[in-house]
Amino acid sequence: MSTASPSPAYVHGYSPDESRRLGAQADTLAALLHSGTAYPPGSRVLEAGCGVGAQTVHLARSSPGARLVSVDVSAASLDRARAHVAAQVPDARVEWHRADLHALPFPDATFDHVFVCFVLEHLPDPEGALTALRRVLRPGGTLTVIEGDHGSAFFHPDSRHARVAIDAQVRLQAAAGGDALIGRRLQPLLSAAGYGDVVVRPRTVYADRTRPALAEGFTRDTFVAMIEAVRDDALAAGLVTSADWERGIADLRRTAGPDGTFHYAFFKATATRPVSAGAVP
Amino acid sequence: MSTASPSPAYVHGYSPDESRRLGAQADTLAALLHSGTAYPPGSRVLEAGCGVGAQTVHLARSSPGARLVSVDVSAASLDRARAHVAAQVPDARVEWHRADLHALPFPDATFDHVFVCFVLEHLPDPEGALTALRRVLRPGGTLTVIEGDHGSAFFHPDSRHARVAIDAQVRLQAAAGGDALIGRRLQPLLSAAGYGDVVVRPRTVYADRTRPALAEGFTRDTFVAMIEAVRDDALAAGLVTSADWERGIADLRRTAGPDGTFHYAFFKATATRPVSAGAVP
Repeated sequence: MSTASPSPAYVHGYSPDESRRLGAQADTLAALLHSGTAYPPGSRVLEAGCGVGAQTVHLARSSPGARLVSVDVSAASLDRARAHVAAQVPDARVEWHRADLHALPFPDATFDHVFVCFVLEHLPDPEGALTALRRVLRPGGTLTVIEGDHGSAFFHPDSRHARVAIDAQVRLQAAAGGDALIGRRLQPLLSAAGYGDVVVRPRTVYADRTRPALAEGFTRDTFVAMIEAVRDDALAAGLVTSADWERGIADLRRTAGPDGTFHYAFFKATATRPVSAGAVP
Repeated sequence: MSTASPSPAYVHGYSPDESRRLGAQADTLAALLHSGTAYPPGSRVLEAGCGVGAQTVHLARSSPGARLVSVDVSAASLDRARAHVAAQVPDARVEWHRADLHALPFPDATFDHVFVCFVLEHLPDPEGALTALRRVLRPGGTLTVIEGDHGSAFFHPDSRHARVAIDAQVRLQAAAGGDALIGRRLQPLLSAAGYGDVVVRPRTVYADRTRPALAEGFTRDTFVAMIEAVRDDALAAGLVTSADWERGIADLRRTAGPDGTFHYAFFKATATRPVSAGAVP
């Protein structure tokens, strides 16, 4: 949900047992998001906005023969990404570049495929970024985008305080120029940015007592942890009182309990850079 | 979404062309909801709360050899259901009974399977209804439940007025003793009512410009039409002003347009009546 957060396996995996359990959970989520994405050997793949490498690991595993180029604007993130990938997929061959998505240091049509995950949600001009990415994609090449949408979060027991806490995160992200509700508008964004063959589908996480690893690993340790991370900013901005915040977080955590349920929809889009009009009969 | 509404094909199918198009759309939604539900020839199946027969038609088609017994509390609905099924599935053999779900006129363990669709959302005591249904299900027999959850509705362009209109429908349904947000709590409800092997999964409708039939047939002619139907009650209850209502409905309809998107999650649950403790080693 944030490119700044590594997968929960590395944050919360204190014991080997827990590490294994959460690793399995992270794999479940990765399978949900990455299934259908595998690039042929030799194909040139740009990962735009790799952050600390959480998705790079999955790309490298799913497409071992692809020529992966991962770009991020933050040198610190790139350092962490490089170390993370080296530890997790030692034989991965990744080329790392520090660059702004809006000014990529690559000639036109450099890549066969572009992959963007949990990046557009942070950008003030996602359409501009998509247009810039289209330039470096060869005509006929594919773009894959994965984003969440916090408006898809609903749960049992329902709680007004929990909804206020989530809404605070959405407002703070908007104030920072991002959009935590971007999943629902991937279709019009990609169309407006000049892509063709745009196909968007929800990829839904639903956790209840029959899926305790998902309830803990996703609901509590990923989603609720992400909301909790904005506590100080939410209080400083006056979006919620301290007491209401604590109650909202407690109510959210309860949805990962034995009688709770939690629903969240990611959106995965695929699209192509159209072949130029002149080349089409 | 309401047992009082027939499928849109019969409400809106004015022309043969439109009828075919909406028929295809209704089939898409029926496939989404009914896939995985087929009962063996000779099995005894109770449809609890058949309403006007919208789902009875699909049950009869999917399970042609099953012995289908459809029950509703309303004699008028039963009359419409009988006529609807006779017109749509002429060779269907359905036994019709007028009865209250809480006082079913059947001996214990009469049925191999029970099917409940868009019914619990209207009941003040859904857990009590599920418990009553468990009585007429044989040990080891299956229960299938399908319900919506209006809290799963989100869309582009987002609109506060549209959300207020949906919220008015949710409040009115709650005031009438129902729960338009019941999908998220099927898991705890079924567990509390004494069922075993409870498995709940979302079945999601997502419509955008690449699925115009779904955008028109589901977003506009099913979901928005259902919200529009409570206009007078919402205004009478003072939940919204007339101007805000019209704007909310216009905004909702826009989500079915060429740049709009619409997301809705149904929930489908399956469960079994546990075999009595004495019969298990």
